[in-house]
Amino acid sequence: MFSQNPEDLIRPLVARLNPYVYGEQPKIKGLIKLNTNENPDPPSPVVLAAIKAAVDGRLRLYPNPTAEGLREKLAKLHGCEVANIIVGNGSDELLALAVRAFVEPRPNTGVWLRNAELSRATVQYFNPSYSLYPVLADIHGAAKNPLELNGDFALPSAGELKRGRVWDFQAALTLITTPNAPSGRGYPTEELKAICERQRGVVLLDEAYVDFAGENAMKLALEFSHVLVARTFSKAYSLCFQRVGYLVGNPQMIAALNKIRDSYNVNGLGQVGAEATLTDLKFYKENFKKIVETRDQVSRELTGLGFYVLPSQTNFILARPPGIAAELWLEKLREKKILVRWFKSPELKDYLRITIGTPEEMASLVKAARAIIKG
Amino acid sequence: MFSQNPEDLIRPLVARLNPYVYGEQPKIKGLIKLNTNENPDPPSPVVLAAIKAAVDGRLRLYPNPTAEGLREKLAKLHGCEVANIIVGNGSDELLALAVRAFVEPRPNTGVWLRNAELSRATVQYFNPSYSLYPVLADIHGAAKNPLELNGDFALPSAGELKRGRVWDFQAALTLITTPNAPSGRGYPTEELKAICERQRGVVLLDEAYVDFAGENAMKLALEFSHVLVARTFSKAYSLCFQRVGYLVGNPQMIAALNKIRDSYNVNGLGQVGAEATLTDLKFYKENFKKIVETRDQVSRELTGLGFYVLPSQTNFILARPPGIAAELWLEKLREKKILVRWFKSPELKDYLRITIGTPEEMASLVKAARAIIKG
Repeated sequence: MFSQNPEDLIRPLVARLNPYVYGEQPKIKGLIKLNTNENPDPPSPVVLAAIKAAVDGRLRLYPNPTAEGLREKLAKLHGCEVANIIVGNGSDELLALAVRAFVEPRPNTGVWLRNAELSRATVQYFNPSYSLYPVLADIHGAAKNPLELNGDFALPSAGELKRGRVWDFQAALTLITTPNAPSGRGYPTEELKAICERQRGVVLLDEAYVDFAGENAMKLALEFSHVLVARTFSKAYSLCFQRVGYLVGNPQMIAALNKIRDSYNVNGLGQVGAEATLTDLKFYKENFKKIVETRDQVSRELTGLGFYVLPSQTNFILARPPGIAAELWLEKLREKKILVRWFKSPELKDYLRITIGTPEEMASLVKAARAIIKG
Repeated sequence: MFSQNPEDLIRPLVARLNPYVYGEQPKIKGLIKLNTNENPDPPSPVVLAAIKAAVDGRLRLYPNPTAEGLREKLAKLHGCEVANIIVGNGSDELLALAVRAFVEPRPNTGVWLRNAELSRATVQYFNPSYSLYPVLADIHGAAKNPLELNGDFALPSAGELKRGRVWDFQAALTLITTPNAPSGRGYPTEELKAICERQRGVVLLDEAYVDFAGENAMKLALEFSHVLVARTFSKAYSLCFQRVGYLVGNPQMIAALNKIRDSYNVNGLGQVGAEATLTDLKFYKENFKKIVETRDQVSRELTGLGFYVLPSQTNFILARPPGIAAELWLEKLREKKILVRWFKSPELKDYLRITIGTPEEMASLVKAARAIIKG
C-alpha cells in the first residue's frame, strides 16, 4: 500500500487560498447577536405555516430544478420575464457563478498579460465592501482590482476616479454592494448608472440590504444587458436558514449562469418559503419600517454618547466608538453578552458594525455602551 | 446609452457548454414516476416531526456554516473524525467542488500538453455512469477520459485495462459511481481497491445508491489519502427536496474543498432533516429491505415477460425490453401514465432505466408491460 501526499493532489491555487472568514454563530445563552445582519424578527406566520405544510412525503422528490414557481412570482414583482431571473442557494452562490461565467482565470504561468487579457481576468470591487468578493476572485484564480471608496465610504466621483490610476480600467466583472456593506451607506441610482455606462464588462449590483434603503437600482438590470442585480431572502425576509437569493438580468446572461450551476441548486423548502414570502409583502414592509425607526433611534442615541455614526440605508450601522479602540469595545461588549462585528482592515479598524436588533436589544446595547464609557 | 452584446460578456468556455439534462419532473395527475430514482416512501415520521419542529423564528438565522452537528453524527456512524467529513448542497455540489479543487483547467490556447500536464487537467470516469461527470469537466475546462465498461457494464479487469490505451493513464480525478448508475451493477470493493492502488490522482467513489447494495467501500476513504467516498441523503433517505450529501476522506483533502465552497452551503432545515435521519436508521433499514424485495420481484416478473434485466444493487433496474425499440417502450409506457428513463447514447439506447417504486406501482408497471407486449 502507498500513501499519497495530499499536497500533491490539491491544486496549488487552492492550497494557497485563505478561506473566507464569516461572522461568528456562537451558542452563548442570552447572547444579543448583532454581528451578522440578520433580521431580529421571525418570518411572517404565513411563511412559517406554508413551510410546515410542505413537510411531508414530497421531501422524497427532487425540488423544481429551476425554481419555476418562485421565478414566476418574482417576474411579476419586478415587471420582467421569468427568463430574466435565476435563483440560487443564497445570493453567495450566484456571486460565485458570476465570477466563473464572466471572468477568465489567469494562466498558471507567470506570463505578463496584455491589457485586454488582464481586463478579461479581473474582478473589481470597491473597498471596503462585501469581504467575500476578493475570496471569490482568488478561488477562481482571477486578478483583483480593489477601488478605494472616498472618506465616509462614498463613491468616488467620475472626476476623482478619472484622476486615479483605476479609472477607465475595464474589468470583466465589477461587484458593487449597494447599499454598501459594511458602511451602510446608500448609493444613488444615478451614480450607479454612471458607473454602468463607463464599464464594458459585467456590473453586478448586490442589493442584499436594499429593502432598508430609500431607492433601488433594479431598473438598471432591465435596461442594460451587462448589468445584473442580486437580491436575497436571507436578511430582510428572515430566511437566512433557508438559503434563497436571486439575480435579475438579461436572459442570455442568466442562461449562461444556468449552464454552470448545480442542477438542483435550491432546496425545496427554501423555494416554498420564498414563494410564501411574496404573498405577504405587507407584513415585511411594516417590519422594515420598524427596523428603520429603531436604526434611526439608536443612531441618535449612540451619537449622543460620542459615537460617530455613519448614515445608514441598511439594517446595520457602522459606528466609530469614543475613547478606547474599537477592538477593545468589541471585547467589552462581548463581556456584556453583546456581539457586534469588528474588521481589522485599516479602513475599518476604528469602527464597529452593529446589526439593528429589536428595540429592546438596542436599548441593551445603548445601556452597555453608556456603562463602558463610564468605565 | 449603449447596449453590450452578451456574447462578448460570457466566457467562450461557458458559451460552448451543453447544459446537463436532468430527469423530467412533470406534473401529470396520477403519473407513476419511475424516472429519477427517488425512494417511493416518505421520510421517517421522526424526521418529518423534527423538521416541522424547527420551522420557527430560527429561520431568520444563518445555519451552521460547517453542518457541525451533522458531521459529528456522521463521524460516529463511520468511525472517523469530524475533520474527515464535508457536507454539501446535495452530493452534486461536492462533485463539482472536487473537480475545481483537484483538476487544473486546460489553458485556453490550443497548446499541446505534455503528459504530466494533461494528467493534471483530466477527469476520468467509466462510461456509462453518472451523466453529470462530463458536464462538470466541461464546465471547469478540464479534459475528459471516459473509460468504456465491459459488456453488461462490469469493470474491466486489470489485464483488460492494461491492454487498452487508457491503462496507466493517471488522471487528476477519477469519478466512479458505485454501485453503477444507470446499470445498477455493484462493484466489489476489492476491484475498486485495485483501481485506487493504480491511480496516483484522486479517486472519488460516488456511493449514491450504496444503501441498496451488499457492500460498500467506505473503508477505502479512511485507508487511502487520495480516495474520497460520496454519500447522499437524497435517494435512500427520501430527502431529495432538502439537498444534503457528504464526502468522507483525508482531512487535508476535505480542508481543500472547504476553502472553495460557499460559506453557508447547506440549508438549515436540510441539516435538521439529515441529523434526525441518523437517529432513526432502523426505520430506513426496513424500508431498504422492502425496496430490495420489490426490485427482485419485479426483475423476475419482467424477465418472465422477455425483458433482459441486469442484476441490480440499487433502487432501480436497467432492462432491455423485448420486441419494439426501447425508445418506443418509453412512449408507450408514458401513454399509460408510467414515466421511466431512456438514454439515447449507443451503449444505453436499447435499455430502460426503471426506478423501484411501491409494490403497487411496480405491479402497474408489469401489467402495462404485459399489455404493450400483447399489442
